[in-house]
Amino acid sequence: MSVNTQATIASFGGKLLKLAHNSSVLGCESKFNLFLPPQSQNSRVPLLIYLSGLTCTGDNCSEKGFFQHGASKRGIAVLYPDTSPRGIGIQGEDDSYDFGTGAGFYVDATAEPWSKNYNMYSYITDELPKTVFDAFKDQLDSSKVSITGHSMGGHGALSLFLKNPGKYKSVSAFAPISNPLKAPWGEKAFKGYFGEQDWQKKGAEHDSTELLKKWKGGDLDILIDVGTGDNFYKQGQLLPENFVAAAKEIGQEMGVNVRYQPDYDHSYYTMATFADDHVDHAAKYLFA
Amino acid sequence: MSVNTQATIASFGGKLLKLAHNSSVLGCESKFNLFLPPQSQNSRVPLLIYLSGLTCTGDNCSEKGFFQHGASKRGIAVLYPDTSPRGIGIQGEDDSYDFGTGAGFYVDATAEPWSKNYNMYSYITDELPKTVFDAFKDQLDSSKVSITGHSMGGHGALSLFLKNPGKYKSVSAFAPISNPLKAPWGEKAFKGYFGEQDWQKKGAEHDSTELLKKWKGGDLDILIDVGTGDNFYKQGQLLPENFVAAAKEIGQEMGVNVRYQPDYDHSYYTMATFADDHVDHAAKYLFA
Repeated sequence: MSVNTQATIASFGGKLLKLAHNSSVLGCESKFNLFLPPQSQNSRVPLLIYLSGLTCTGDNCSEKGFFQHGASKRGIAVLYPDTSPRGIGIQGEDDSYDFGTGAGFYVDATAEPWSKNYNMYSYITDELPKTVFDAFKDQLDSSKVSITGHSMGGHGALSLFLKNPGKYKSVSAFAPISNPLKAPWGEKAFKGYFGEQDWQKKGAEHDSTELLKKWKGGDLDILIDVGTGDNFYKQGQLLPENFVAAAKEIGQEMGVNVRYQPDYDHSYYTMATFADDHVDHAAKYLFA
Repeated sequence: MSVNTQATIASFGGKLLKLAHNSSVLGCESKFNLFLPPQSQNSRVPLLIYLSGLTCTGDNCSEKGFFQHGASKRGIAVLYPDTSPRGIGIQGEDDSYDFGTGAGFYVDATAEPWSKNYNMYSYITDELPKTVFDAFKDQLDSSKVSITGHSMGGHGALSLFLKNPGKYKSVSAFAPISNPLKAPWGEKAFKGYFGEQDWQKKGAEHDSTELLKKWKGGDLDILIDVGTGDNFYKQGQLLPENFVAAAKEIGQEMGVNVRYQPDYDHSYYTMATFADDHVDHAAKYLFA
């Protein structure tokens, strides 16, 4: 459970820590970043987990997402995990941007040869937070955790929240892959990680739209931003409309607030613009 | 003077335009970014020029510096030029990170083989603003221009301001190379661009500390942020103390506000943290 500090960077009055540890569930060293706001010097602060999208590491949003701006004001720590195991050496893991390295999809793979290492679901829901709360027990309040993410990480945030009622105080997402069973990215990932036989059944257990249809956890308040200039939205990779339809199906249409942001694209410029709103959304529940 | 729009990106309620034009003084195509705040839809807005540091293009600060956050609130456009000509093909131009490509140092070179293209001083003070104000005459107020920059770009901002009294409404800088004649980076650049014979004499015409000693332009109000964790500061590349000493020499010590920011480094995390302060500093004079 030991954590190795590779760099400490001053940011918005707090510290961005570049960290690494040996992950058992991934079977490799895993890097991640943790932003500790100035308030963590005097008291234990809540934690917002930010899950990144395809091809990214925890560094991209740390540099370009602007979450530290709001998190510093609010007194919230931000955890930026990686998106997959690294350097495993499975044949084909580096062949495409949307499968394998950088594309763990926040599931536990069941198909060979991925099942031994590609366990990002267990990593994010269990091993990483345990590691972080153990290493930073004086800075972090482990009882107050929210989750957010972008694209593949938006899928991660929504599905982890919906699969684990009560685990996270709130959820929000940027351009989430909201119905991966119906999207090319999701189909490719689920077929690969779950196998051609099982991908639809097992995929349904990680598909936010399918999970929402079965939601029994009480009133929802989910904030989602999608840019109308987002090419992946236009190509049908994100399908937020299906998520909204599922919310209506269960009488939770008031609980899903999808904001279609005019002209905004799929890039970090969008996260930077609306990061404060997502931190504020989390703060409403983390400090409730 | 025509400008080619390569991308339009929504950012903080405004638009970040990725632009290119054929520069006469550089003798090549030159790319730059222009952030137009939402206010520019209804009226002509002031302009803040941000000069980048070694190795950078206009993209780095557009993505990681978060000037758009404050500029959008204040109604200020931000211009992000490149740091040198590109693709000229001079032997050795790509050999080092601190000379040639990406390292134009905001001077007009006089030594061969650089003097034909490496004319960043004329480019930034004359050709680029003319081009931009011509292309965006309905969005920009050419009578209200301020300047800022980072590292080599901080040197650029200070020296352009001090060489041209009245041209810029205000100046600020992050980690500026404040006395390049006394710093390894500056010595290398000036020797290269001005020649071994002339580098000290010509360099003095671009050295902010030397320029400040001869300042006759009235009361100054210069904001400078330097991180105490900045390795280049520790290595003596920045020398802000010399700039402060020059200010005292001319009785302008009240006009130079160097803030030593504890633990902050030379990276964009520092710009991101204090960008709002520098936009506010410019706004005080742009809207005076």
